[in-house]
Order: sequence, then structure tokens, then C-alpha cells
Amino acid sequence: MTAPEPFRFPVAARYAGMESSPLKDIFALAARPDVVSFAGGIPDPALFELEDVRAAYDWVLTHQGARSLQYGVSEGEPELREQAARRVSRHLPTSAGQIRITSGSQEGLFVAAQAMLEPGDVVLVESPTYLAAVQAFAVHGARMIGVETDDHGVIPEALERSIREHHPKFVYLIPTFQNPTGRTMGTDRRREVAEVLLRTGTALVEDDPYGELSFTGTTFPPIASLPGMSERTLLMNSMSKLMSPGVRIGWIRAEGRVLDTLAVAKAAISMQSSVVDQLTVARYLEVCDLDAHVARVSAVYRTRRDALSAALTPLLPPGAHVTLPDGGMFLWAALGEGYDAQAMLADAVAAGVAYLPGWSFYADNPDRSTMRLSFVTHAPEVIGSAVARLGEVIAAHGAR
Amino acid sequence: MTAPEPFRFPVAARYAGMESSPLKDIFALAARPDVVSFAGGIPDPALFELEDVRAAYDWVLTHQGARSLQYGVSEGEPELREQAARRVSRHLPTSAGQIRITSGSQEGLFVAAQAMLEPGDVVLVESPTYLAAVQAFAVHGARMIGVETDDHGVIPEALERSIREHHPKFVYLIPTFQNPTGRTMGTDRRREVAEVLLRTGTALVEDDPYGELSFTGTTFPPIASLPGMSERTLLMNSMSKLMSPGVRIGWIRAEGRVLDTLAVAKAAISMQSSVVDQLTVARYLEVCDLDAHVARVSAVYRTRRDALSAALTPLLPPGAHVTLPDGGMFLWAALGEGYDAQAMLADAVAAGVAYLPGWSFYADNPDRSTMRLSFVTHAPEVIGSAVARLGEVIAAHGAR
Repeated sequence: MTAPEPFRFPVAARYAGMESSPLKDIFALAARPDVVSFAGGIPDPALFELEDVRAAYDWVLTHQGARSLQYGVSEGEPELREQAARRVSRHLPTSAGQIRITSGSQEGLFVAAQAMLEPGDVVLVESPTYLAAVQAFAVHGARMIGVETDDHGVIPEALERSIREHHPKFVYLIPTFQNPTGRTMGTDRRREVAEVLLRTGTALVEDDPYGELSFTGTTFPPIASLPGMSERTLLMNSMSKLMSPGVRIGWIRAEGRVLDTLAVAKAAISMQSSVVDQLTVARYLEVCDLDAHVARVSAVYRTRRDALSAALTPLLPPGAHVTLPDGGMFLWAALGEGYDAQAMLADAVAAGVAYLPGWSFYADNPDRSTMRLSFVTHAPEVIGSAVARLGEVIAAHGAR
Repeated sequence: MTAPEPFRFPVAARYAGMESSPLKDIFALAARPDVVSFAGGIPDPALFELEDVRAAYDWVLTHQGARSLQYGVSEGEPELREQAARRVSRHLPTSAGQIRITSGSQEGLFVAAQAMLEPGDVVLVESPTYLAAVQAFAVHGARMIGVETDDHGVIPEALERSIREHHPKFVYLIPTFQNPTGRTMGTDRRREVAEVLLRTGTALVEDDPYGELSFTGTTFPPIASLPGMSERTLLMNSMSKLMSPGVRIGWIRAEGRVLDTLAVAKAAISMQSSVVDQLTVARYLEVCDLDAHVARVSAVYRTRRDALSAALTPLLPPGAHVTLPDGGMFLWAALGEGYDAQAMLADAVAAGVAYLPGWSFYADNPDRSTMRLSFVTHAPEVIGSAVARLGEVIAAHGAR
């Protein structure tokens, strides 16, 4: 006698074979206590304004208690939409009615995909781009095509060529302190990209979770704020990198009829975001000085970027390329021909240091010699010794 | 000169024409301060255990502060999964590893749909069934087919016939204190339905947000707990009706490989649920007596069900049918031939009373004479006078 076959749940094609992922295994490895990990984009918890957040929750539960525990609306709580609109309005005039609250940027990307994508649609993305965005688009049956970039972001001519060839449903860009490269599109590049999008009648999903984490004091107006762009852009912000990722609050800024579609999609996905969290973030934004907090965080991150860059750059082989981001959380290194960052990872972890192999950030044609390193989690002295060990691994692989 | 055409965002077919909905208009009407609304399924906020919830948030932010503000994992926080497993284990042995946390039941339904549904798939649902579940399935391109029900829920013979004819991807049932009817499947009916599902090799999505809100002290083991069923059932629970809908915490109980798919889908949709909220609900479940709270709430809801039933039943026309639920939040009335609850609503609202027309709860072949009334929001004296006005409207429409 044999045991009966266990029941197998049907799995939609979009998730077939995705029960585990190499990245999940990497993060599991990187979480080992003996490993200094640059793999995640994890904020340093020592920088959380815990007391301010605790006070905001307490205020909400004391003064808006019944409301905070009750159902809300899919569009988001009015106070939070008002606070979000004020922040966006620094660069782009925005009313609360033009804000849709989401449970972090990830849900924002998923809502945008739900609202717009059909199976077989093309989405143009930077090459490389943020991998979880690619996943949110891919499970909608979209085909991602990478557009060539340089140190100033996506190349306008390449973008226009790709748009004319592939007729994308939208273009997805992270113009400021990009994930994974840390690169930023300057003012001229933004204008050139906007002109391409306007000329070709293309929609833009502009993801801006890092833009406020500037190391130079300079912040960049979103592409959405350029003439003609606001009506064709879904601009996404998140509190994850500024206040707390655990609270899961972000928003989409949009105009016109798409706002209704976004609200209907949000309702289908999760009805509404946590009302307690929404009201708490609104309170926090109202009474706390987020700008001062972000300035403190950015100053710390800057010293860590410096430590990572100073330690890593001399250890890289000739012909390697490494970014020196003006903000954000990530630095990107391409070791160059002959290196495979994925193959090298096991040795790196054995040496007590982890990074994220860069191939996973490419929609197509990955440069397998690339790696993403987040500089935000560890103190400079930890960074220095860990990168020294990584240098030995790189040298050993270069000698092969 | 004419102004240029405004840019139109592409809208996926799944949301085409869904910029607004008749239901949204109804809820807007029903929210008028001069209207006593039975339309929503809104818990009475006076029954929230505000002080307990506030204390739980405060404890988490004091003792698990940095962790609560940091990224978590898509599966959900271990403490909450442990607490959820304990509650589910009252009827069905369950480990924390078999729990996936979602942002309320709505996201649970959406995650299940993402994990399983392809465009063109059939989902069998009770006729009538919960309309927001229908929406979560519909935006995945599924075709919903309603299965005939009686006062004991879905009819096993009709279910088997439908399964053999339509080969559904899964069957979606709310066996206890169903939304919208308030009906409950008894023990025998559950066994018969389980036998059909086992015999036909069919997966079940079992939605149980109301089961603990019992007016008789009797709670019903889920169909998932019957022999052979646990491995083919996604069992969904929610804290929305027990503790707070604003906190947006629910879970899916499952077994085997589908657990991995659910986690990957959850990650694609929203990365993870609010870590603060998860840890707070875990703390609440650990130190507060949710059973005692639910007993208090159920006792209040019972008096309100009695008030609504006593007021409404004598006012219904001959041939009308009304349910007398043993728990939950909803009562369902079918006025019978010649009545159109949607057409009657404007007069009801003018008379200061609102309900939800029943047609929207049908996947197909709606009985337009039906209406859903929630008895949980208002005190008995408010219910009595509002229903008297509704009775006049019904009488006027019957005389036409």
C-alpha cells in the first residue's frame, strides 16, 4: 500500500516555480550573525525616532481612538493625504484629493500594475532597476525590457528608440539615488527624458522613495513636476526610508480619472491601509520635524557611504566601475569581465560578508559582474574590516 | 483654439468602467447624518476595547520598538503566527508555520486569487455571496458562478453538479453567519459539502470572519477541520470583526507547498503587513481576553438582531422571506415578486433609512427583491423607529 498523493493546490502560471528564490536564500545566508551583510536595504534601527513614533501612536489612540480602529476609505485618511500633499507640493502643486495611500511603495507599484497592465504589455525599465518592482509588473503578465543607462540614468535616445519599438504601457523610473545603482538623473537629463515621454505620449511611473536622503543638501524635483508631465505620471513616495519601513505607509500622487481606478484597485487588493498607521503617520508628519530627522539620517548614511567607497574602491580590479551616490542607500559595483558576483557570493559569505549579486536587477541581459552594496546598516569601522575581507575574495576570484 | 486633450492613463480591462460603482454611491448616501444606515457591516465603535489596544501598541513600541519599525518577513511575524495558530487549533491542529499573515481578509482573498487564478478560470460561490470577494476574483479574470443555496447554505447536490459541469479552480464558501445572508451551514451540511469536494478533488477557500460572533454559544468547526479537508482548504480568519477593522490584520491557514506560493504572492503585493500592527495584535491576543470581549460584543449584537428582526418581520409583505441569523452581523430579506430593492432605495433614503440592495451579492441571476441589513451598528431604539419608516416605504412600493 502506498499513501495517497497529497492534494496539490492549483498554482497560477505567474507564480509557477517561484516557491523559493535565489534571493531568499541569499537573504537567509546574509542574516547569519557571523556575516556582515550589505545585501539588504535595511535602515539602521538605531536611527528610528522611536519616542516620536510612540508618542504619535499614543496620541492617535487617545484622541482618535474609535476612528483609528474603525474602517476607513480606500483613498486613505484625509489627514494623511493632506500631509502627503504638502510634502509633494514642495516640488509639484498637489491637493489631498490627488493622493492615494498605499501600504508602502510595494503596494503602490502593485496597485499601478493592477490598474494598467494586461498580459503581454511591455514595461520599460532602467537597466538595472529595482527587482521587486519588476516582480509586481511580471505577475501581471507584463514583459519588462531594460533601457540602457549611464551614470546619469536612463539614456534619452535609447528610451525613445525603445518606446517606438515596443509601445510600452508605461515607463518605470527611479530618477533619484536609484535602487540598485545609487545614480541620479540630473536636471538636464530629466528634461530630456520628459521630452521623450511627452513626444511619444507615454505614461510614467516615477518611484521616489530615496529622494529626500540627500548627502549634498540638493534635492531633485521629480520628473512629474516638469511641464506637461504631472498628468501622465504616477509619482510614488514612501515613508519606509524616512520614518519606518515597519509601518508600511506610502502614497501615489496622480491626476484625473486614473485616481478613481487606483482607488478601486486598492479596494480590491486590501480595502484600505491600516487606519491606525495612517493616522499615526499623519500625526507624526504634523508635529515632528521629519526634515530634521532625515537630515540626521542622511548625515550618518553619508559617512557610511564614504567608508564603503573608501574601503572598496582601492580593492576593485582594473576596469571595474563603482558608483559614488549623492544620497540614498546603495552603491553599485561592476567588477568587469571575468567576474561572476553570484558565483563569488559563497566565498564572500564564508569570509563573513554578503552583498546582493547584481544580475537579479536586470530585466534582460544581466551584467553578472555587478553587485549591490547597501551602506546604511553598519557603522564605518564594521564596514572597513568587512570590505577588506570582500577584497580578498575579489582578488582570489580575479586570479582564477 | 481648443485645449489639448488631457492625457488618458491606460486602464486595464479588469477595471474598465469601474471608476465608480453604485455601491459607492449607496454608501455615500447612507453616510448622511440624517440617515440610519443598515447598509455597512460596520462594528459599533463603542464596543472597541480601546484601552487594551492602546496598551498593546504602547507595550510593543516600548519593548519591541526598533523591531516593530523595521522590515519584517512576508510570512508574518512569528508571535502573531503563533497566536493565530493557537486560535485555529481550537478546531484544527495548526502550527505557526501554517499561518500566513495578511492585511485583513480582503488581502487574504486577493492573495489566494493571485496564487491560483488564471483568466477564464471558474470560481464557484454561494448564491448570494460576499461581493468584495467576487471583486478580488473578478479582477483576476475569473468567472464566478453562483451555486444554489437554502437556509442551510450551499446545496450539496447543486454544488456537485456545478463542479462537474464547470471544473472550478476552487469553491469559495462562508459557512458560518454568512455575508450577506447570516445563514450557517450545520454539521451535516458541512460533512456533505466536504464529501463533494473530496470526491471531486476540488480546492476550497473557506472564509470565516464571523464564526466567533455566535449568539447561541455554539461555534462551528470549519469545513477545513473535517477529515481530508485541511490539505485542500485555504482557511481565512480576520481580526476585523473581533478586535478592529482599522488595524487590518487577518490570516490564511494552509498546508504544504501552497504556503510558499502564498508568501511569494504576498511579497509581490505588499511585501509584508504592518509590523507594528502585527506585533500589537499578537500582544493583544497574548494578554487580553479576546473570548470575553467577543462574548460581550455578541451579546450586544444579539439584542440588536432581535430588535431588527422583531421590527422588520411584521412589516414584510406576504411571501417575503427573512433570515434569523444565529450570529454575525447581517440579516437578509427577500421581499418577493414585484419588489425591486434597488429601485426602492431612493425612497428609503428619503425616509431616513438605508440598506444594501441584494442584487450586488449575486454572481449571476440576482433576486432583485433582496436586501441586506446589518444589525450591529445601531442601538435597538434607533433600529425600531428606522425600520418603521422602512416598513412604510415597503408598503408604498407593494401597493404600486
